[in-house]
Amino acid sequence: MRLARLNLNGKETLALKTDRGYFDVAAVDANAGTDILAFLDSGNAKAAAGAIAKLPDSDAIDMSAATYLTPVARPGKIICLGLNYVAHAKEGGFTPPEYPVVFFRGATSTLPHNGAIKIPANSDKLDYEGEMAVIIGKAAYCVSEEEALDHIAGYSLFNDATIRDYQKRTHQWTIGKNFDTTGPFGPDLVTPDELPDGAKGLHIETRLNGKVMQSATTKDMIFSVTKTIQLLSECFTLEPGDVIVSGTPEGVGYARKPPVYMKEGDTIEVEVENIGTLTNVIGRM
Amino acid sequence: MRLARLNLNGKETLALKTDRGYFDVAAVDANAGTDILAFLDSGNAKAAAGAIAKLPDSDAIDMSAATYLTPVARPGKIICLGLNYVAHAKEGGFTPPEYPVVFFRGATSTLPHNGAIKIPANSDKLDYEGEMAVIIGKAAYCVSEEEALDHIAGYSLFNDATIRDYQKRTHQWTIGKNFDTTGPFGPDLVTPDELPDGAKGLHIETRLNGKVMQSATTKDMIFSVTKTIQLLSECFTLEPGDVIVSGTPEGVGYARKPPVYMKEGDTIEVEVENIGTLTNVIGRM
Repeated sequence: MRLARLNLNGKETLALKTDRGYFDVAAVDANAGTDILAFLDSGNAKAAAGAIAKLPDSDAIDMSAATYLTPVARPGKIICLGLNYVAHAKEGGFTPPEYPVVFFRGATSTLPHNGAIKIPANSDKLDYEGEMAVIIGKAAYCVSEEEALDHIAGYSLFNDATIRDYQKRTHQWTIGKNFDTTGPFGPDLVTPDELPDGAKGLHIETRLNGKVMQSATTKDMIFSVTKTIQLLSECFTLEPGDVIVSGTPEGVGYARKPPVYMKEGDTIEVEVENIGTLTNVIGRM
Repeated sequence: MRLARLNLNGKETLALKTDRGYFDVAAVDANAGTDILAFLDSGNAKAAAGAIAKLPDSDAIDMSAATYLTPVARPGKIICLGLNYVAHAKEGGFTPPEYPVVFFRGATSTLPHNGAIKIPANSDKLDYEGEMAVIIGKAAYCVSEEEALDHIAGYSLFNDATIRDYQKRTHQWTIGKNFDTTGPFGPDLVTPDELPDGAKGLHIETRLNGKVMQSATTKDMIFSVTKTIQLLSECFTLEPGDVIVSGTPEGVGYARKPPVYMKEGDTIEVEVENIGTLTNVIGRM
């Protein structure tokens, strides 16, 4: 199942994506609400999808009247993994880590699909990092790798866009990872049944103005989705709506010769096979 | 004004602290709710405090029936400053920073006054860090140092308790700063009118089982409260309810010879002059 939160004619709307486009879930389930996780928990999602399959094509949402919202409105924690692909660790001059390198983003940094990542006034060193996002559905504390799969509500896409000079102003990266609008997230939440266990072995690609900048597979992650959940949950409770941003592969802008930073008017896309494509334009604050 | 959120006989309660003890704000303002920031914004806080002043002593809350809650239920961001006192930076072998060293905590790490900080199963390297907390009242983006004061709802206390070996497993400290129950926060929110501008020049002290372990003044902070707000707000929006944890002075446990870590049954207190004392016991997961 593929679900998105939309702003449709000014109204927050829960939408199911089908081969025939997006459909408003409220048309078949008046109690569905607009929270994707609550809807998945309600037990009515399968019946709603079945009912939507019977709706005529003409009931599909007119997407020209809709804008996307992030799949989770205000994640409690956005837990980002650094250096989780060997080749990316090496391009930055780092040793591949033996334990997850973790930093957090705040919800203020997030941005929906099609929104504008805005270059701030104080830096023009805006870089992309295409990543797969894992959305927690059920609280997890001290769970095993095997149990981890039961705690995943679904997968999505994240662009862990970074203000590189601020990331490196001190040894802690958090500030450079938290500028407003630098965390595109979406467009859809894709439930685990649509994907291999732990979303392993999916092609991941980032394109800047159509040119492929990052191309890898999620099987190259040093810490797999399930291993990451096991290790994080030894330290803190993963709550429903928490998002794990699973690290970026080789090919980021700052490590190129010469370095590539995103400029006003650019288009950046993050695609993961069978999860979708997250597209954003670059604007200015 | 000094306000706390309490669990009183199982019911969330907004309480005003006076010299005669805590009083239930709902007794004089039926619309007060239980959110401290919303109450301060309502414009009714002064009138409520005046009405409480006329209540008999016998109306004070029986604190044996109450437990504390954190002053903000679920801060959107908990922004922690590292190495913000010169002597503390040096005791850890760090150069005092020229720009704030920032990491985030998630709300899952927070714990109220009198709650038990629990030593996790995977480490016994639990250290204290007494700090002053600043609670944002009004959204701030690109504000000046002077404007910063208008964006502060109040001050409180925070123990930025740390699992030291996890803090140092990689170069990013976030994971060691986010274990469940390691972020005591409270007891009261103290409004700015009770304190010097920017809470400058207040004595800050941490005591382990009654013994003074940290003793300094907030005027020794490298980045003052207002400077911190100015610099952070150049990068991201500070939202109402966000908490800035302003750094710890010299005297943490791990830098002592021999190192001191907290053990089950210990009591740890963080006190800042005129803000209060935050007390927690050490337990085990």
